[in-house]
Amino acid sequence: MNEIISETLDQWHKFVEAPSIAILHGILDENVNFHSPFVWKPKVGKMITIGILMTVTEVFENFRYIREIIGDSQLCLEFEANVGELTLRGVDLIQLNEDGKIMDFEVMIRPANGLQMLGAEVGNRLAAKGLI
Amino acid sequence: MNEIISETLDQWHKFVEAPSIAILHGILDENVNFHSPFVWKPKVGKMITIGILMTVTEVFENFRYIREIIGDSQLCLEFEANVGELTLRGVDLIQLNEDGKIMDFEVMIRPANGLQMLGAEVGNRLAAKGLI
Repeated sequence: MNEIISETLDQWHKFVEAPSIAILHGILDENVNFHSPFVWKPKVGKMITIGILMTVTEVFENFRYIREIIGDSQLCLEFEANVGELTLRGVDLIQLNEDGKIMDFEVMIRPANGLQMLGAEVGNRLAAKGLI
Repeated sequence: MNEIISETLDQWHKFVEAPSIAILHGILDENVNFHSPFVWKPKVGKMITIGILMTVTEVFENFRYIREIIGDSQLCLEFEANVGELTLRGVDLIQLNEDGKIMDFEVMIRPANGLQMLGAEVGNRLAAKGLI
């Protein structure tokens, strides 16, 4: 694993352990594209992506990564988490730019009932914050 | 990329180009676990996995891989495809055993409407074949 990926991944792991806007500010590109598991069209920009990621961390319980596949400038991080009574799995597909900043962040979730419950929980919170 | 992964990936790409039960027989472990994007519980075994994979290839149109992240014994293959009027993305998360056979195959799909349409199409076909 090259140094740039390693540093960003370390910071991301710190964020997952203790969510912090400051950490996200340090590792997200200004024009990051965020592809949610729910809708096709990406959200663009650091501020909305921070808002979404901070919100999602409120909803997941027992979040843990179970598999990491590391490429040259890309990461595939698979997680398991609980939402309410359900257990779900997901992947974070992360593309870094040459400075090690995250320029593309895509999330997919299975199974369908977990995706649905997550969507309801996250949607309510984003709407309450005026983010969607 | 090591040779065992490379050979299995080559065979998989051949399968995607021209779906063939014979190719799947050669690269799937007898006890492969298949984790669908729709339900939590995996399907276990080569025969049911072949049935599912052959069926899914009937439903996807314009299937193409857009990103591949390769680990030591794991693959993260991201695709785009059309189902009816919709475009969707998905990942194949593939774990190989020491012989290069696929022992675990997990699929996730986004966005939610694409997952739903795929589920309806694939579910109908699997039911018609008596596979679910």
